[in-house]
Amino acid sequence: MRVGSSLVKMSVKFYSIKDEVRIVGFDDGPFTRGDSEVIVVGSVFRGGMWMDGVLSTTVSVDGLDATVKLVSLMGRCRFKDVRVIMVDGIAFGGFNIVDIHGLYLQTKLPVIVVTRDMPNFQDIESALKHLPDTKTRWDLIKNAGEPRPVETRAGKFVYIQTAGIDFSDAEAIVKLSATRSLLPEPIRVSHLIAQGIVKGQSKGNA
Amino acid sequence: MRVGSSLVKMSVKFYSIKDEVRIVGFDDGPFTRGDSEVIVVGSVFRGGMWMDGVLSTTVSVDGLDATVKLVSLMGRCRFKDVRVIMVDGIAFGGFNIVDIHGLYLQTKLPVIVVTRDMPNFQDIESALKHLPDTKTRWDLIKNAGEPRPVETRAGKFVYIQTAGIDFSDAEAIVKLSATRSLLPEPIRVSHLIAQGIVKGQSKGNA
Repeated sequence: MRVGSSLVKMSVKFYSIKDEVRIVGFDDGPFTRGDSEVIVVGSVFRGGMWMDGVLSTTVSVDGLDATVKLVSLMGRCRFKDVRVIMVDGIAFGGFNIVDIHGLYLQTKLPVIVVTRDMPNFQDIESALKHLPDTKTRWDLIKNAGEPRPVETRAGKFVYIQTAGIDFSDAEAIVKLSATRSLLPEPIRVSHLIAQGIVKGQSKGNA
Repeated sequence: MRVGSSLVKMSVKFYSIKDEVRIVGFDDGPFTRGDSEVIVVGSVFRGGMWMDGVLSTTVSVDGLDATVKLVSLMGRCRFKDVRVIMVDGIAFGGFNIVDIHGLYLQTKLPVIVVTRDMPNFQDIESALKHLPDTKTRWDLIKNAGEPRPVETRAGKFVYIQTAGIDFSDAEAIVKLSATRSLLPEPIRVSHLIAQGIVKGQSKGNA
């Protein structure tokens, strides 16, 4: 993986970040024990302003297909002006972990993982022991790097991990798109859509 | 139906219309021959500004359950501050016509039907002849009244039918919520969501 490793160190340069930079933000829907698949919704936004479109796919609960499904979805995506992928947490459908460096390398789009709370890695590591492919999943989580805080409201933080983008650029994009809540708008809205579609109505504000 | 008729003439009075008046806008998803059901998505918006939540249900293709499904959905809706229901066209899932006066009477919420183009009633009447309950459907369409133009951009119009609201109030709400296109934002966004969920990605801008 020498080639991969050196590519991973490279970043997409943002010489200037426009207020209307096109972002797709993904979140998964709720699921219950026994479900084999979960919906993943992507909202395409102009910065934190307004929605240009909606993408969707499914991933398997506790599976290993999150990355390949997102790569495939982005490959056939008609929104060619998307510049950044955001994901709400590094895992969909339980512990179906997104390989953020792989996603960046295969889509050529920088990836920003956003979480509202600092992940508890000790709890995650314990939970992974009950699943197959424990090491594969844990490596994907470790390789995503330490989450770093971004202050999206005075004194309030979200946490991000990145692939293919400098922290300062990622921080600027998260801040400019968090127009309505602590979370970037493409992620807040994808959360509401996924909940509303699966449950009949959304709860909370992402 | 004397009681119904007199109630129909009453309107919800809007003493002042706030920019952030809560609107739910419904649109149905695409379907293909052989589908028995189609998804209907409702986006709850603050005026034409931002999304508060998402609702969804299904209605039968060419069925008669659109009104009862919307009444039921609104009855269990947790967004208690919604003041207006918008629907993108008077029919979902083909010719499953919404009884807009019934929807108003049962939800106590005014209803505004919005269409981008003036409906061709001659074509609709012909098509209805191939379906059961022709007269029921045609009566629901006729009772919704003549669509009236609303200029949402200079020289560009959408057409509306209303129940439970004065035309001037409905016109003001349509205009204030059409922030991003000719169509009110709750309807534009529900269209994108329904397409994106059913097809994997949305096309066009509503």
